[in-house]
Amino acid sequence: MIQKLIRKIEESRAPIVAGLDPMLSYIPEQMKKRAYEEYGETLEGAAEAVWQFNKGIIDAIYDLVPAVKPQIAMYEQFGIPGLTVFKRTVDYCKEKDLVVIGDVKRGDIGSTSAAYAAAHIGKVQVGQNICRGFDEDFITVNPYFGIDGIQPFVDACREEKRGIFVLVKTSNPSSGEFQDRMVDGKPLYEQVARKVAEWGDACMGDSYSYVGCVIGATYPQMGETLRKLMPKQYILVPGYGAQGGKAKDLAPYFNKDGLGAIVNSSRGIIAAYKQPAYAKFGEESYADASRQAVIDMREDILSAI
Amino acid sequence: MIQKLIRKIEESRAPIVAGLDPMLSYIPEQMKKRAYEEYGETLEGAAEAVWQFNKGIIDAIYDLVPAVKPQIAMYEQFGIPGLTVFKRTVDYCKEKDLVVIGDVKRGDIGSTSAAYAAAHIGKVQVGQNICRGFDEDFITVNPYFGIDGIQPFVDACREEKRGIFVLVKTSNPSSGEFQDRMVDGKPLYEQVARKVAEWGDACMGDSYSYVGCVIGATYPQMGETLRKLMPKQYILVPGYGAQGGKAKDLAPYFNKDGLGAIVNSSRGIIAAYKQPAYAKFGEESYADASRQAVIDMREDILSAI
Repeated sequence: MIQKLIRKIEESRAPIVAGLDPMLSYIPEQMKKRAYEEYGETLEGAAEAVWQFNKGIIDAIYDLVPAVKPQIAMYEQFGIPGLTVFKRTVDYCKEKDLVVIGDVKRGDIGSTSAAYAAAHIGKVQVGQNICRGFDEDFITVNPYFGIDGIQPFVDACREEKRGIFVLVKTSNPSSGEFQDRMVDGKPLYEQVARKVAEWGDACMGDSYSYVGCVIGATYPQMGETLRKLMPKQYILVPGYGAQGGKAKDLAPYFNKDGLGAIVNSSRGIIAAYKQPAYAKFGEESYADASRQAVIDMREDILSAI
Repeated sequence: MIQKLIRKIEESRAPIVAGLDPMLSYIPEQMKKRAYEEYGETLEGAAEAVWQFNKGIIDAIYDLVPAVKPQIAMYEQFGIPGLTVFKRTVDYCKEKDLVVIGDVKRGDIGSTSAAYAAAHIGKVQVGQNICRGFDEDFITVNPYFGIDGIQPFVDACREEKRGIFVLVKTSNPSSGEFQDRMVDGKPLYEQVARKVAEWGDACMGDSYSYVGCVIGATYPQMGETLRKLMPKQYILVPGYGAQGGKAKDLAPYFNKDGLGAIVNSSRGIIAAYKQPAYAKFGEESYADASRQAVIDMREDILSAI
């Protein structure tokens, strides 16, 4: 799947991923009204509104971007109806030949991580049948448990030719509270990075590993150091745009081959119509605003790298 | 909800939580056969088998234990049908007046943690209505993002009078890979513990905080140190039994009031009939074996503390 991701990035000339992280406040009023009329002001109604909103955006941008990253929390908050729409979104994006990165940040002790891996990038055996729960191409995972919490995900990567992005340095303001603490003269995120590089060696594609990492766009100096520590890791870069990351800071995340990183924008794309720059599209044409935001983001990033 | 947990522990004289972490391999063959006949060898069939298995155990032990801890990964692996059974299990346990600890180990940047908090211990507003997705009493959370990833959970605890258990030292063999690394002369898990104590001060019940922690039974010496660093935290203790934790090691996890810790057993209870000690019950009476295992575990732990 890392090969497909790279191929699609090269074809689209867009090292960007659209974060499908819908909030009810992003969804046009008329769209919510129609969903609530049909399903009530219920979890089902909210989930239907999210689905219609997502579908509009996917239809508007699928030819421009290589990948999407639905954040499962935004669906999980609407319970089972919400997660049903998460699954529907994953399936629809795959129909559109998009690479799907499930932003799930799971991680636990070995036997439990094995169940999460089965849920998202692997399979379960039920009687004589092989079944798949959510069936994403990549997921994000949390390294706090150490290798035996990660190994089941790495095993699934190898068996299924799918991938993971391990959290190394997250984009949020307080990520340094633990991640930056000095351990043997180096920050913890560097210690995690060294392990990620080691884990990734065990499942290589042609030039990049199936095991990638997450480094926030909001910490470009750390990005530069970490790029060198993990030359074969694809870096998933959140935090561009709404969280404050700038395109000019992104060059160090890429390798000399022009590959090696994919930059996420969520609000900046899916709620573009709420920004002054795209207000002219209006609520009704929110998906056209998203398309224009993708085009502008691509240009912004390509100019910087 | 911490008050209810403490009251139920005192009433039951059982500081134990039954981990509802079903694997298909634990479920009696006849029960799986019936589920597959009705729903096929599908995710739906697997989920039905899990539900029937859980219901049997809950009916057999609900009068003995104060709390249950369903591990969501074991349900998530069966996709939407699995998560539907997770929700059904949560609801059924609450009907039986059990305290429900959702073992979800979620954690992310602030806005995303807010969605997870809403999903599990909070609420969402849909139009004029307040809706709840999964509606557990407590959940487990991952601290790797630092305070802005934790704050939304703490806020939900305060608003909803529900609780969280923050991972401090996990029970798995490689937990030390990052958690034990020395930071300013102290292991990272101690640094996390100090923060948990600080976060917990902001939402106290009568004598314990709504913010608790997770410390594995497999690291009793660390448990002793951490107990002192977090006197007001309830400690959720996984790793007893199948993972190797012994009752004699558990005394340091408790405070002098005899409270302050709740010990989890999953396989040891729900798959008791597969152990030589309970084999006499047989597959058909697997739930009776679970009941006996709970009685024995209570005795084992009370004798040690």
